[in-house]
Amino acid sequence: MRTMFEIAGRAPIFRHVPPPDLERLLQRSSVRQLDRGACVYLQGEEAHSLFVVLEGWVKTYRMTPCGNEAVVGIFTKSDSFGEEAALGNQNFVAGAEAVSQGIVLQIDAQVLTQALSGDMVLCQSVLAGAMESNRCLVEHVEQLKSHTGGQRIADFLISLCGDKSGNCTVILPYDKVLIAAWLGMKPESLSRAFRRLKAYGVTIQKDHAIIESVERLAHYADEDPAESWSAKNDCKAERCIGSN
Amino acid sequence: MRTMFEIAGRAPIFRHVPPPDLERLLQRSSVRQLDRGACVYLQGEEAHSLFVVLEGWVKTYRMTPCGNEAVVGIFTKSDSFGEEAALGNQNFVAGAEAVSQGIVLQIDAQVLTQALSGDMVLCQSVLAGAMESNRCLVEHVEQLKSHTGGQRIADFLISLCGDKSGNCTVILPYDKVLIAAWLGMKPESLSRAFRRLKAYGVTIQKDHAIIESVERLAHYADEDPAESWSAKNDCKAERCIGSN
Repeated sequence: MRTMFEIAGRAPIFRHVPPPDLERLLQRSSVRQLDRGACVYLQGEEAHSLFVVLEGWVKTYRMTPCGNEAVVGIFTKSDSFGEEAALGNQNFVAGAEAVSQGIVLQIDAQVLTQALSGDMVLCQSVLAGAMESNRCLVEHVEQLKSHTGGQRIADFLISLCGDKSGNCTVILPYDKVLIAAWLGMKPESLSRAFRRLKAYGVTIQKDHAIIESVERLAHYADEDPAESWSAKNDCKAERCIGSN
Repeated sequence: MRTMFEIAGRAPIFRHVPPPDLERLLQRSSVRQLDRGACVYLQGEEAHSLFVVLEGWVKTYRMTPCGNEAVVGIFTKSDSFGEEAALGNQNFVAGAEAVSQGIVLQIDAQVLTQALSGDMVLCQSVLAGAMESNRCLVEHVEQLKSHTGGQRIADFLISLCGDKSGNCTVILPYDKVLIAAWLGMKPESLSRAFRRLKAYGVTIQKDHAIIESVERLAHYADEDPAESWSAKNDCKAERCIGSN
């Protein structure tokens, strides 16, 4: 129980809430076990709850009118999702689905809204969380607009390395179709881009990425995409399509 | 003066604040005249203020390490910007620059933060605004991931039409380099895409776009990008590079 509150307490929206207040707040929340592929909520559904991931991975995604899927967010331990809709008393702007076995904490929006209306600290804390998720989205928009597919993968691998330098082996946390969708690429473009990263010291073995030098990879991620594109013609039509 | 408060009062973050409270809150704000190209704030700068556009257009943008620019947001009358940083007591995550002559209302972050800490309604209202800007970013991410360049332009033109149907002439509100950057395209890809839109009944004449049928354009925007791409090969390398 305590562990559950600790994990939830690290979520941006709860980070500034004093632990006893948070425990009281979350007492009426419920725990949901999710199988891989389980639907947490549908796009357009009325939002009665928000969620914190306790274990595993969850994606949020939008269906385009023609049935394609754009992965908008990927969430893991201590990440919250669904709060924009739940607290705004709106419908969910994207659907949410477990991409691995997992456990989420489901928090009743009404309970939280009620708590918010009487608790300044909680309100400001939730606001700080909203600003943080906003900043993450801005970073993602920038990456989508200014980086080639290969560079986005490099960024993605580096983000998995943490602060490490030198060599590093990371476990790819979810399947490649999902990574492609998250990075705004077609799965086949992702495979090509992975192969190209060999030249920058990256070897992919099943769900492991072995990186010879994080610095070298970071240098590639920061290169001028115009140069890398004209030199290597390596991103033709990447980013044109989300995954199917 | 009243007009100024009215314009600011339509900004999402102030929309739910009772007008007398808002007037009191904004009494200490200042009005800034901006020439086209004027810097409002720099990326990385400490955030002491947030802003509402009273007239004209402002863009927020991120510089990539190699000096490219990704336009993250475009703001006009009654839009607020900079609040994520100003209210989080953080540095600005993106820079802001006037893209036309304009006027902005500059609101001291400390004044607002102080007001927030004693005013539940204001805090919840600002939170609602943050959630709304979050939803806009999610829509933009989806568009970047799942639509071709041509489709993104179609979406953009449709958004300028408002709710209209049938034929419609819209004025392109800022220059084409900026539109390209906002849509994550190279300027030359934008020009090509504009030419291709002729087949869908769109004629560009200087800064006017003449649309024969909004419905027909909307149908194109919603087509499967995979089909439109393979059929017309129309998005090669678009989206690979932000503007320069």
